[in-house]
Amino acid sequence: MAKNIKPRAEDYAQWYLDVIKAAQLADYSPVRGCMVIRPEGYAIWEGIQRELDRRFKDTGPTNAYFPLLIPQSFLTKEAQHIEGFAMECAVVTHSKLEHGAKGLKPGGELEEPLIIRPTSETVIGHMYAQWVQSYRDLPVLINQWCNVMRWEMRTRLFLRTAEFLWQEGHTAHETEQEAEEETLRMLEVYREFAEDVLAIPVVKGRKTEAEKFPGANVTYCIEGLMQDGKALQCGTSHNLGQNFSKAFDIKFLGRDNKQQHAWTTSWGVSTRLIGAMIMAHSDDDGLVLPPRVAQNVLAIVPIFKTPEERAKVAAFVEKVVRSLCGDAEFQAGQKRAKADDVAAYFFDKFTHQRVVVDWRDARPGDKQFHWEQRGVPFRFEVGPKDVDQGGVTAKRRFDRQKGFVELAKISPSYLRLELDAVHRDMFAAATKRRQENTRDAASYEELKAIVTDKGGFVRCFFKQDKSIEARIKEETKATVRCIPMETANERGKCILTGQEGQKVLFAVAY
Amino acid sequence: MAKNIKPRAEDYAQWYLDVIKAAQLADYSPVRGCMVIRPEGYAIWEGIQRELDRRFKDTGPTNAYFPLLIPQSFLTKEAQHIEGFAMECAVVTHSKLEHGAKGLKPGGELEEPLIIRPTSETVIGHMYAQWVQSYRDLPVLINQWCNVMRWEMRTRLFLRTAEFLWQEGHTAHETEQEAEEETLRMLEVYREFAEDVLAIPVVKGRKTEAEKFPGANVTYCIEGLMQDGKALQCGTSHNLGQNFSKAFDIKFLGRDNKQQHAWTTSWGVSTRLIGAMIMAHSDDDGLVLPPRVAQNVLAIVPIFKTPEERAKVAAFVEKVVRSLCGDAEFQAGQKRAKADDVAAYFFDKFTHQRVVVDWRDARPGDKQFHWEQRGVPFRFEVGPKDVDQGGVTAKRRFDRQKGFVELAKISPSYLRLELDAVHRDMFAAATKRRQENTRDAASYEELKAIVTDKGGFVRCFFKQDKSIEARIKEETKATVRCIPMETANERGKCILTGQEGQKVLFAVAY
Repeated sequence: MAKNIKPRAEDYAQWYLDVIKAAQLADYSPVRGCMVIRPEGYAIWEGIQRELDRRFKDTGPTNAYFPLLIPQSFLTKEAQHIEGFAMECAVVTHSKLEHGAKGLKPGGELEEPLIIRPTSETVIGHMYAQWVQSYRDLPVLINQWCNVMRWEMRTRLFLRTAEFLWQEGHTAHETEQEAEEETLRMLEVYREFAEDVLAIPVVKGRKTEAEKFPGANVTYCIEGLMQDGKALQCGTSHNLGQNFSKAFDIKFLGRDNKQQHAWTTSWGVSTRLIGAMIMAHSDDDGLVLPPRVAQNVLAIVPIFKTPEERAKVAAFVEKVVRSLCGDAEFQAGQKRAKADDVAAYFFDKFTHQRVVVDWRDARPGDKQFHWEQRGVPFRFEVGPKDVDQGGVTAKRRFDRQKGFVELAKISPSYLRLELDAVHRDMFAAATKRRQENTRDAASYEELKAIVTDKGGFVRCFFKQDKSIEARIKEETKATVRCIPMETANERGKCILTGQEGQKVLFAVAY
Repeated sequence: MAKNIKPRAEDYAQWYLDVIKAAQLADYSPVRGCMVIRPEGYAIWEGIQRELDRRFKDTGPTNAYFPLLIPQSFLTKEAQHIEGFAMECAVVTHSKLEHGAKGLKPGGELEEPLIIRPTSETVIGHMYAQWVQSYRDLPVLINQWCNVMRWEMRTRLFLRTAEFLWQEGHTAHETEQEAEEETLRMLEVYREFAEDVLAIPVVKGRKTEAEKFPGANVTYCIEGLMQDGKALQCGTSHNLGQNFSKAFDIKFLGRDNKQQHAWTTSWGVSTRLIGAMIMAHSDDDGLVLPPRVAQNVLAIVPIFKTPEERAKVAAFVEKVVRSLCGDAEFQAGQKRAKADDVAAYFFDKFTHQRVVVDWRDARPGDKQFHWEQRGVPFRFEVGPKDVDQGGVTAKRRFDRQKGFVELAKISPSYLRLELDAVHRDMFAAATKRRQENTRDAASYEELKAIVTDKGGFVRCFFKQDKSIEARIKEETKATVRCIPMETANERGKCILTGQEGQKVLFAVAY
C-alpha cells in the first residue's frame, strides 16, 4: 500500500487529495480557492477538450470567445440569474495601481464595477441581440472554452474551486422545439462522452425546480456515482426559453414577418470532470486513468543491474518503441530527452498521447510505483530475462492483469486494442458498482436509512416541492439528483406526501 | 470594388476595421477595449493554437494552467516588472455584490487587491520555487494558453485590446547556457510558424535595452512588415536570467551540492497574430486567409436558374464533396445543414478544416462576394455548363487565378497540393513586398526621409542609447525594431553618433 496515500476506507476526502498530490495533477495557488493545474492534470483536460470539441463540431456548434469582464448592470437584467451569482462574484473596481503613502494601491476607479464572468449568458445575450435580425440568422450555435470565477467558501481541488476552466455552449433558435432539441442533443453528447471517454456511467435526467440553473426553464443533467456513494453532477444542459432573449432583446423577424424573441439554450462541463474521473476509478495505490484521456498511455520500465544489462535492455526497448511509435518519432524523442531521465515518444500525432521510457537512476520498484501512482493505463517491464524470451511483461494499471507479450506482436494496433479493452473493463466495473449502489425506497424512513447506512442512489417516487426538498436536505443531506429520462413517464405514490409523484433519484452529492 | 470596405490607399486604418467587420472576425464588446472574437475569427486562433501547440510539444514543453488572479504583492517583487505593468492593471478588490441604498454594490472587500494577470512570470515563479528542489527537477518546460489583461488607452481589434488571448511559455533551467538555448529554440519555432503557417516573412532579432521586456536580460523577437510599411512585432522570447528566480526564490541543489538560483525564460505570441495575418495579406476586397489556418479551405458556389438546373448542379456538387471529404462525411454534413443554407463538410478530421457549399437563396454574384470577403483560399463555381463539361471552375482568392478542373482530378491530395501552392505563392508575394520595402540609410537625414516618404524597414548602423532612441521616436515615430540575428556581427559607424554601432532595423511600428 502506498504510504503517501490514505486508504479510501480510512478517510475518503484525504485519499482524494493524496491521489491528486501523488499524481501531481494540481496544487492550491497563493490566491484562496484558486488552483494550479499541473502538466499531468492539464493533459487530462486537453484530452477532455479534444474529445468534446470534436463531438460539438460534429453536431454543429463552433467556438468563439467572449470577454472575461461583464458590466454589473448586465448581471442584474435577469432576476433569477443575479440571485444565483451575486454572492460569489469577483469584482473589478480599478484600472491601475498607483503610488500611495503605503506603497502601491488601486487607482483609476471605474464608473461601473465589472464582474469576472461566473458564466456568460448575459454578455453573450447582448451580442446575439446585435447579430440576430432575421430567422435566416438562426440558429446561432456557439461554444466557448474559457475560465470562470465563482467565489465559493468551501473549495476542493477540481470539484469546487473559485476559478475553474469549462466550456459553455450558447445557442439561439427560431422555435421552442428547436431549442429543446438542442438542449437534449448536447445532453446526449455529454452522456456519450462521459461513458465512452471517461468510462463513467451516468444517468441522464431532469433537475427539479429547486435545483435548476438560475434563469433556466428546464435544466437537464448527467449524474455520476462516486466510490464513496456520493453523486456528482458531471454536466448540465439548460433550456432557457425566452428568459434571456427577453432580458437582452434577442429579437428576429420571423417567417411570418413578425418580430419575435429567440429561444436560447446553454450547456457546460468543467474541470470538475477531472474530479469525477479521479473519484470514479482511482484506488488506494493512486490514480487510475481511463486510457482515452491519459497523456501517457504506456510506461516502459527497464530493469537492469550492470551496464551490460542496461545496454541489452536498451537495445530491446528501442525495438519496442520503434514498433509502437515509428522510427522518426523514436529519433525525435531521443533528441528531446536527457539520457538519465524519462524519454517521451508520441504514440499518436493527433492526440499527442505518449509512450514513456523511464531511464531515471532509481530502483525498478520505485519506478513501477511512480507510474502506478500516476495512473498510466499500461506498463511494460523489460528485464534481461524478458529480452532473452523475446518480449516484455505487460501490466494493466486498472486491475493489475499481467502477461508476457512477444515483440513480434507489439504494434500500434496491438496497443490500441489493449487500451480499448481497458476502457471497456473500467466502464463495466464502474457500471457494476453503480448498480450495486442503486436502491429503491418505498418510504421516507427507508430513504433515510439507505442514505445514512449505505449511500448511493436511492430510487423512489416523489412529488416536487421546494420546501419539502429543503427539509429532506436538512435532515439527510440528500437531494433529488434528477428525474431520470429513462423512467420519466412512470408515476407512483410520493414517499412523503402520498400524492402522485415521479420516479426520482436521491443522493448526497458533491 | 467592395462598397463596405474602404480601399487601403484611402484610409488604411479604416480598411483594417472594415475587413474585420466584413469577414465577421471580431466585434468590440460592451466593456471598453475588450473584444468578442466571433466564430470566423476564433477558427483562425484555433488554427494558430493547433499548429503552435504541436511545435511546442515536439520540442519539449507541455501545457498547464495557472490562476487568473495574482496578489498585488507578487507583481512588485521584480522592480522593472511592476514598472512595466502597474499603469494598466485590472484590479479586483471585492468578492461579492451586496444590496446597498442604490441597488447592488461591491461587497466583501479583499485584504489584498488581486490583479488580473497581465503576464504570469510572478505567480509561475512562485510555483516553480515549490516544485524545484534539485537539478534533477530541471528543466521545467511549461506553456499556458490563456487570457490576459493590459488596460491600454488606445485599442485596436486584435492588435491592441484590453483583454487578449495568448500563450506564455515559462521554463527553468540548470545553467545560463541552457536558458539561452531554450530562448532561441522557441524564437525559431515562432519564425518557422509565422512563415510556414501564416505565410508572413519575419526578421529574427534582438531588442535594444530600451525595448526589452520589463524584467528580462535579453528579449528576442520576430518582426513582420505590414502592407502600409509599418512593422509589427509578432512574437517575443525572453531570457530572464536569474531575475525572477531571485525575486521568487527558485533555488535548487546543483550537481556540485550547492544551492543556486535557476535560469528562466518566457516566450509568447497572442491574438495579435491574427491582426498581423490580416494586414500582411488582405486586399481591398477583404480578407485573404493563408490556407493553413483557414477554417473553410474551399467554398463551392452552385450556379443555377431553374429547379432542373439546381437538381443537375446539386447531383454534381455531391460528387465533388464525396471525392474530397468521403461518403460518411457527406452524409454527416447533410444532417447538420438546413437545405437552404451553407452546408459544411469536414475536409480534415484532425484540423476540422472544412469544405462549404453555399445553398442560400441569393444571387451567385453575392455568394462569390461573400466568400471572397471572408478570405476563403479556394473557390469552385459549378453551373450547368461546368457540369456538362464534367468539371468545375476553380478560383484562388489570393491572386484570382482561375481554371477548369475535371471531376476525375478532384481528390483530397489535389486540394492539399493546391492549398500548398497558394501558401507558397502568398509567402513569396509577402517576401517580395518586404524586400522592396527594406532600405539602407547612411545618415540620420536619410533615415528620416525614408521613414517619412516611404515607410518600411530602414537598415543602418546604430549604437544603442536609450535617450537617443527616445529622441528618434519623438522626431520620426520610428523605433529600433531589432538587431537582426543574420547580421548580428556586422559593425559600422552609427548614423547618429559616428561611434561603432550594430546593424539594426528601424521602422514605425504598431
